[in-house]
Amino acid sequence: MVELGVVYRNIQRADRDVAARLGTFGTATVHEAMGRIGLLKPYMRPIYADAQISGTAVTVLLHPGDNWMLHVVAEQIRPGDIVVAAVTADCTDGYFGELLATSFKARGAQGLVIDGGVRDVRALTEMKFPVWSKAISAKGTVKTTLGSVNIPVVCAGALVTPGDVIVADDDGVVVVPAALAQKTLEAAAARDANEGEKRKKLAAGVLGLDMYNMREPLQKAGLKYID
Amino acid sequence: MVELGVVYRNIQRADRDVAARLGTFGTATVHEAMGRIGLLKPYMRPIYADAQISGTAVTVLLHPGDNWMLHVVAEQIRPGDIVVAAVTADCTDGYFGELLATSFKARGAQGLVIDGGVRDVRALTEMKFPVWSKAISAKGTVKTTLGSVNIPVVCAGALVTPGDVIVADDDGVVVVPAALAQKTLEAAAARDANEGEKRKKLAAGVLGLDMYNMREPLQKAGLKYID
Amino acid sequence: MVELGVVYRNIQRADRDVAARLGTFGTATVHEAMGRIGLLKPYMRPIYADAQISGTAVTVLLHPGDNWMLHVVAEQIRPGDIVVAAVTADCTDGYFGELLATSFKARGAQGLVIDGGVRDVRALTEMKFPVWSKAISAKGTVKTTLGSVNIPVVCAGALVTPGDVIVADDDGVVVVPAALAQKTLEAAAARDANEGEKRKKLAAGVLGLDMYNMREPLQKAGLKYID
Amino acid sequence: MVELGVVYRNIQRADRDVAARLGTFGTATVHEAMGRIGLLKPYMRPIYADAQISGTAVTVLLHPGDNWMLHVVAEQIRPGDIVVAAVTADCTDGYFGELLATSFKARGAQGLVIDGGVRDVRALTEMKFPVWSKAISAKGTVKTTLGSVNIPVVCAGALVTPGDVIVADDDGVVVVPAALAQKTLEAAAARDANEGEKRKKLAAGVLGLDMYNMREPLQKAGLKYID
Amino acid sequence: MVELGVVYRNIQRADRDVAARLGTFGTATVHEAMGRIGLLKPYMRPIYADAQISGTAVTVLLHPGDNWMLHVVAEQIRPGDIVVAAVTADCTDGYFGELLATSFKARGAQGLVIDGGVRDVRALTEMKFPVWSKAISAKGTVKTTLGSVNIPVVCAGALVTPGDVIVADDDGVVVVPAALAQKTLEAAAARDANEGEKRKKLAAGVLGLDMYNMREPLQKAGLKYID
Amino acid sequence: MVELGVVYRNIQRADRDVAARLGTFGTATVHEAMGRIGLLKPYMRPIYADAQISGTAVTVLLHPGDNWMLHVVAEQIRPGDIVVAAVTADCTDGYFGELLATSFKARGAQGLVIDGGVRDVRALTEMKFPVWSKAISAKGTVKTTLGSVNIPVVCAGALVTPGDVIVADDDGVVVVPAALAQKTLEAAAARDANEGEKRKKLAAGVLGLDMYNMREPLQKAGLKYID
Repeated sequence: MVELGVVYRNIQRADRDVAARLGTFGTATVHEAMGRIGLLKPYMRPIYADAQISGTAVTVLLHPGDNWMLHVVAEQIRPGDIVVAAVTADCTDGYFGELLATSFKARGAQGLVIDGGVRDVRALTEMKFPVWSKAISAKGTVKTTLGSVNIPVVCAGALVTPGDVIVADDDGVVVVPAALAQKTLEAAAARDANEGEKRKKLAAGVLGLDMYNMREPLQKAGLKYID
Repeated sequence: MVELGVVYRNIQRADRDVAARLGTFGTATVHEAMGRIGLLKPYMRPIYADAQISGTAVTVLLHPGDNWMLHVVAEQIRPGDIVVAAVTADCTDGYFGELLATSFKARGAQGLVIDGGVRDVRALTEMKFPVWSKAISAKGTVKTTLGSVNIPVVCAGALVTPGDVIVADDDGVVVVPAALAQKTLEAAAARDANEGEKRKKLAAGVLGLDMYNMREPLQKAGLKYID
Repeated sequence: MVELGVVYRNIQRADRDVAARLGTFGTATVHEAMGRIGLLKPYMRPIYADAQISGTAVTVLLHPGDNWMLHVVAEQIRPGDIVVAAVTADCTDGYFGELLATSFKARGAQGLVIDGGVRDVRALTEMKFPVWSKAISAKGTVKTTLGSVNIPVVCAGALVTPGDVIVADDDGVVVVPAALAQKTLEAAAARDANEGEKRKKLAAGVLGLDMYNMREPLQKAGLKYID
Repeated sequence: MVELGVVYRNIQRADRDVAARLGTFGTATVHEAMGRIGLLKPYMRPIYADAQISGTAVTVLLHPGDNWMLHVVAEQIRPGDIVVAAVTADCTDGYFGELLATSFKARGAQGLVIDGGVRDVRALTEMKFPVWSKAISAKGTVKTTLGSVNIPVVCAGALVTPGDVIVADDDGVVVVPAALAQKTLEAAAARDANEGEKRKKLAAGVLGLDMYNMREPLQKAGLKYID
Repeated sequence: MVELGVVYRNIQRADRDVAARLGTFGTATVHEAMGRIGLLKPYMRPIYADAQISGTAVTVLLHPGDNWMLHVVAEQIRPGDIVVAAVTADCTDGYFGELLATSFKARGAQGLVIDGGVRDVRALTEMKFPVWSKAISAKGTVKTTLGSVNIPVVCAGALVTPGDVIVADDDGVVVVPAALAQKTLEAAAARDANEGEKRKKLAAGVLGLDMYNMREPLQKAGLKYID
Repeated sequence: MVELGVVYRNIQRADRDVAARLGTFGTATVHEAMGRIGLLKPYMRPIYADAQISGTAVTVLLHPGDNWMLHVVAEQIRPGDIVVAAVTADCTDGYFGELLATSFKARGAQGLVIDGGVRDVRALTEMKFPVWSKAISAKGTVKTTLGSVNIPVVCAGALVTPGDVIVADDDGVVVVPAALAQKTLEAAAARDANEGEKRKKLAAGVLGLDMYNMREPLQKAGLKYID
């Protein structure tokens, strides 16, 4: 239930260690471990390659063309957090740049996920402050309308509740509800465990058709080979 | 928190009368009454003009190109409901057509809101079964993967919880959380109350500048008139 | 294999009667009868509602912003044909308007399918000359570069060979290869045969879950009902 | 040169009669008469079919999600004007609805062209107040930031100077600089003069190939006919 | 003609040497040599810069959100091939990742061209397995519906027949029909031959206006210089 | 007012030194200094990272799929200029590549801003000739229709007059009217002056809330903190 004009100061963060370990598996494995859900839309792209972070979400709801609440959320950041910013309507303005990044970083934020635009990407790249955004735009914003901090938000098509685990890498962004974090970690680890084995077999020329025993179901489904 | 493979049979629906009365105000007034929030993305368009409905949400989560769960949700429809269908990834396939509409209508559904495609729009138009969708597409779907029914879903950028009020018209679709329905109804009514008065004044040539006392704040903001 | 600067005068058209009968089933049924293939992308929309046509394709390949070949294709139209126009690169210019429509109609064309823009939509609507296009645009075009007529073209993502059957309605456009027309007609008819029966049952409140015997496979797939 | 926070009260409007007569030719003919220029992007669509207007532009520059200046521009409208609204960044919010339309209409405006969203489309349709917009959205806006009135603006990719002629119909929107209005009118009339003749010939089965003497240039360009 | 559920094992590949030499010219030169045709839509982008490959196409048709057939096509890959994957409807899911890339590479594939999404881009970049795709998405897929292998497919707007030559680089992807490969190679070589010469002249300050003798045709077309 | 078929040889360029110094501030600061205006749409992206240029605009208007005028504009380039290319309709073809870049560079151009496509991006990257474009496409163009050189153009939503200052970097492109260049430079310098100070404070953990004295206005606006 969206409330406007409120800042929740005390949120229940997922276990920090679990969040960190989820990040080692990457977005593809983590969302598979949840049943192929939890991904933000693929239009969310990192501003530079090879960034890979995971942490707990502090959330902020902005209005189009207005970044006032990003200053409000800064105060709520704790080390290890990732800020997740949603906007009440599509707008690619550059809500966030070098100065805010300096502040967020000083507060211990690991990065930003924003369903809008970002600017100063060169400086952010040099600072190694990663951002996943829907656009890059130099367009500045105003500071006139209240949104909220640490309420549940929909960001790029996914519901993010404050304290949830965020995992972000070159493939995109996934959100893991805090209550599912431990279970998802275990499922991700299990999934990951035999990937090395599989990779070795495939590299040796074994076909997935055989390794996964697909030939019979394919035949049953009616697949025909023609010479 | 998204669960897959579950159907919740008992949901707490918003008061039916409140839902019906909210519909009389239309999406613009209702979302304003909530503080300018709750709207689905504007790419959600009605398949025919002049449809205007309101009711309680039953929700369904689909996989791309798979409409199996639409048959499952049919059984959970009660008279006055509006089905809200989300998809785990963007896909414009035509998940819904004349036969499902016949079934939904027989169960008492007032319409469908789907973040995907719909087909048989001519027949649906003739049946007067309104659909708000992101695409029109004849592309059929498979029935192979489980989603869920009556879990909270994100549809076209908005969180919809089963039992919430849905209002949909030519301007789009808005969701009102069940717990806010009564309060929103009052705010919408209050907002609406003096619209007739305002309309009369404006039609008589009174300017909004004067009616809303904007001249002073505009001047303070620095507006300059040049002859 | 695309050739430029050629006009094939003799093409093998699908049986006209088969083409006509395919049209009675509509795009949704026809593409299902082919195995859910053959549809043009859903961005192809009719310029007015309720148009429903089917016929044999004469094809034309245009260059962006150049409609010269539409005059060339006009001569190759025979009564019952539908012109299918592809463009070598995306461009929404208005390649086609009232004068060309007058000419096409005089030659017996039933309509136009164009992966580009169209203009004079009001006049075309009054003339009842249906067009499925990707855009409406008043922008005029030049006549300077040769394309081809009656070569295989890719239009809105689908391969169209001259003489293929085109079916177009409010749901979109489908292409049926001439060699598959008869077989597809039979499959469509079979598919359509018991739709009336199904519709009646569904209208009477029978659920698809029961009519299609879905309860067991859903249970096997692990679906859980929660009260 | 864009100025913010200014309202020009005295603008030089194109001749009203010329503006009216340009409208009779429609956007396709008018932009052709100018050399195929002056069109706004084809994403600008009318909210209802069959609207056709022409008049002189009063312009307004808005900020994303802020419709304050629409109240300011209302005062500058004279009978026969068309309001052209640009926004400093892409945002589909519904800046304009029934109340503003009532006011604009009372001031004599013929319609609105807005590079943003509009709402209350049902009411606007009933009022017969036509709008060409890039989106339909119920999303409301704030009133906090100054733009300008009657400065040159870029709307949907076209430069519009206050007083220019705007012609809008089902095919889109075209702007004719005031200084070119008379000359464009003549060119449009000349272009239109023999359209009836051409239409008759084409309807009688004469080919454009012959009517426009295209066979020789096509042959020279290398076109080959294959039997 | 699209068939579903079939795998063609014996395809006629274009000459490997010709394919390799075509790759040296790059997509811009090759498509020009064909008459400015054969390009896939420009939304097809490489996942990392500086990749440049050419080879013979093995094709696969997928269903949205279903990557089963990618395992089937793996077995049909021969050294030097490039896999070209089409999908029956738009869907950006990540059909392909590190494990499949390991398998494809072990079979001798040079890369993948897919009209859908790809994931594990960091790993693919480290492996130097280039992919041209329409999206990057971590979203996983199911394995439930049959498509086909080595049938003609439409991929990103271009018809690709098994055995055709594919050339891909930073500018995009072009397909050369096998029967045209030799002729296109010659035309590309001819086109390329005097590029060095031209480059030198232009670098020395000679204008294209003079080098290409454009002044006269420009003057004839009516170009006017104003001081 | 758009004229076709003309080349203005003498344009009033903004002061070169002012242009150069504006470039040192980057697009974000420059457009803020102008009142948050003047930016081209954010779809304009650099073909490689870290390019940062500023200079005076020479402009060219092209037709879709036609790059003839790029050869004409080359002659009008003076050292320090940036070519700004607009197109009369959306078309992503690759109007510009290595040969033209060689010529532009020889004439002293610093880069190109084009509301269309570009090709040979690898070669351009190696040459260090930066381009901001809306697409990358290998698709070649024709040379048949006259546009104009050094007339005011609308490029990616912004009005560019010949001689204006263009600043382009990783965040996008901004245009500064020549008459505002000096004043904008001063405003940008003033804006920039205390950024270092602010950055230091924020890096030390001072909050923007305190540094900008936002707490009181936020409280007045009704912001509530909840523990």
